[in-house]
Amino acid sequence: MMNRTLPNRAIEWQEGQLILLDQRLLPSTVEFLRINNVLDVYEAIKNMVVRGAPAIGITAAYGVVLSAISHQHLAADQAKLNILTDIQTLANARPTAVNLHWALKRMQACLDDNSVDWLKNLQAEANSIHQEDIAANKKMGELGAEYIKRNSSVMTHCNAGALATGGYGTALGVIRSAYEQGKIENVFANETRPWFQGARLTAWELQQENIPVNLICDSAAASALRAYDVEWIIVGADRIAANGDVVNKIGTYGLAILAKQAGKKFMVVAPTSTIDLGSASGNDIEIEERGSQEVTHVGEKIIASQGVNVWNPVFDVTPAELVDVLVTEHGVIEKPDTKKIAQLFASPHIN
Amino acid sequence: MMNRTLPNRAIEWQEGQLILLDQRLLPSTVEFLRINNVLDVYEAIKNMVVRGAPAIGITAAYGVVLSAISHQHLAADQAKLNILTDIQTLANARPTAVNLHWALKRMQACLDDNSVDWLKNLQAEANSIHQEDIAANKKMGELGAEYIKRNSSVMTHCNAGALATGGYGTALGVIRSAYEQGKIENVFANETRPWFQGARLTAWELQQENIPVNLICDSAAASALRAYDVEWIIVGADRIAANGDVVNKIGTYGLAILAKQAGKKFMVVAPTSTIDLGSASGNDIEIEERGSQEVTHVGEKIIASQGVNVWNPVFDVTPAELVDVLVTEHGVIEKPDTKKIAQLFASPHIN
Repeated sequence: MMNRTLPNRAIEWQEGQLILLDQRLLPSTVEFLRINNVLDVYEAIKNMVVRGAPAIGITAAYGVVLSAISHQHLAADQAKLNILTDIQTLANARPTAVNLHWALKRMQACLDDNSVDWLKNLQAEANSIHQEDIAANKKMGELGAEYIKRNSSVMTHCNAGALATGGYGTALGVIRSAYEQGKIENVFANETRPWFQGARLTAWELQQENIPVNLICDSAAASALRAYDVEWIIVGADRIAANGDVVNKIGTYGLAILAKQAGKKFMVVAPTSTIDLGSASGNDIEIEERGSQEVTHVGEKIIASQGVNVWNPVFDVTPAELVDVLVTEHGVIEKPDTKKIAQLFASPHIN
Repeated sequence: MMNRTLPNRAIEWQEGQLILLDQRLLPSTVEFLRINNVLDVYEAIKNMVVRGAPAIGITAAYGVVLSAISHQHLAADQAKLNILTDIQTLANARPTAVNLHWALKRMQACLDDNSVDWLKNLQAEANSIHQEDIAANKKMGELGAEYIKRNSSVMTHCNAGALATGGYGTALGVIRSAYEQGKIENVFANETRPWFQGARLTAWELQQENIPVNLICDSAAASALRAYDVEWIIVGADRIAANGDVVNKIGTYGLAILAKQAGKKFMVVAPTSTIDLGSASGNDIEIEERGSQEVTHVGEKIIASQGVNVWNPVFDVTPAELVDVLVTEHGVIEKPDTKKIAQLFASPHIN
């Protein structure tokens, strides 16, 4: 049975438990996992119960709270040592999304401040990370929508929506906001192999709000750009280097090339927590490769020739020069580069 | 059970019956359909039991023979009228592949020559179309392989192999031939949504002959071109316009753009029967759109949000200026255009 109601939240903290919507089963099955220990949080991130860079960061933050709860009976020093070990475990769940490390760093800083209220503080910090992400999405939605003209067709890849974030979404936040302003005529959602996040999640989110959506195979993007008057390709990001190179779902790089060639505009929407000043360029960022079964199977069904070698990179690197607009919660950067990104971080609002 | 043996032929004429390998079930199930009437041939083409432009042409030719057999008890004039009606039916099975119309025209010409041996002649003509296609593939294999350097990585899209033709293959014919010459180090096979012809058919054909193959999602092509030293993207064609525009499986156009941008070479391999001098450019060619279920479902399993709109074009148009080399059985055209293609057809070998 298809449950057509969007759950209130993909991530929720309820009375000492982390409630996660299992996004692997969406939209045919809506199932929530109740998680009360840090190793299950690690598994949930690793196995993609939750995905999307901001959502991974928020989930990891709550994971630290679960760790703290489980160690609260220990002496503070020992408890903190154990929590630090758990933070290290969480940091290894997936290699590419930098929000994971950013959120864990905030949690660790909170732990390090030697307050006697460390458990309460950790809980408050995780909640802040979550709430700030939602607020950032709303802000980015407003800022990005200013670039969208009336009667626009846009294209998006993967799912950078409410499900990938604390709520509202990054790329889908801009699309939602522009739609509320009556500017969006049609959204092309690329299905996004191998996990079908576009077909399963983005299509579903847009349908919930009656935003007109057309699902296409990833390989139909070039034709769609030519056949329809698509103004913008709008995507999220898993990590952005200091020079503006964008690591995002596999396929993004190709789309950015197609956009450039077709004279379309390319927008990346991501909170500043996605920007990794420690990576000078995209070349410095580890690109996760996952197992072959994600490509050779759909569920239990084999759809490829048995035993075939598979190359399954999860992300790709879009060079900054292909990005027309980078939208963050602290402002928009047109044609991002190292200098403009450094200027953004020099603003008093950040850190 | 996985049957790892490639059947001798995907299309075979045996004692008054057409034997078709059901390519929808490959490679997990190897099942042959025995067809003895023209309507079943129509359905087999329409429903993609057989696919690939040359294979569709050959199948349709045998369909005309089946039509002739079923009408042979009638007076010759009436029989021929009925056969012409069946030829019309077959012509409507799929709109884009021009080999279908080319083969039917040859069959009709054979019918029109008023020999008393018309049934025997039709049978011989269908057989010729089939044998000539295999010979053309072998020739194209040789010609195309001359462009491949030693230790090359190449990429192909969809299946333009033995299964898509009378045998040997167009794009895969070139790859086979280059491999036999020790030139191929690795083949990237794009999985080719929505039918997974790359994952199911191309990977399988290459594995049979121990040609090293890496399966990738279509959207990983841009990364593969950048990360690996891919020299050539090699594809078949469903129809080529008089100016050299190439209609081929959805995704081909995007690949040609990526090849150009990455400084890679783009080769199209197709017999002259695929060239439609009646279409001045790709804009004149009807692009088939198929149902949404091909995108929303894998087998019986729904993988997309229920009820979502789908745009499912089967082919796209690659402008001639993105084609570096067009290989035909009558010679190779570099940087094809209207004049060069007209010259090829003016040669004494082609009618």
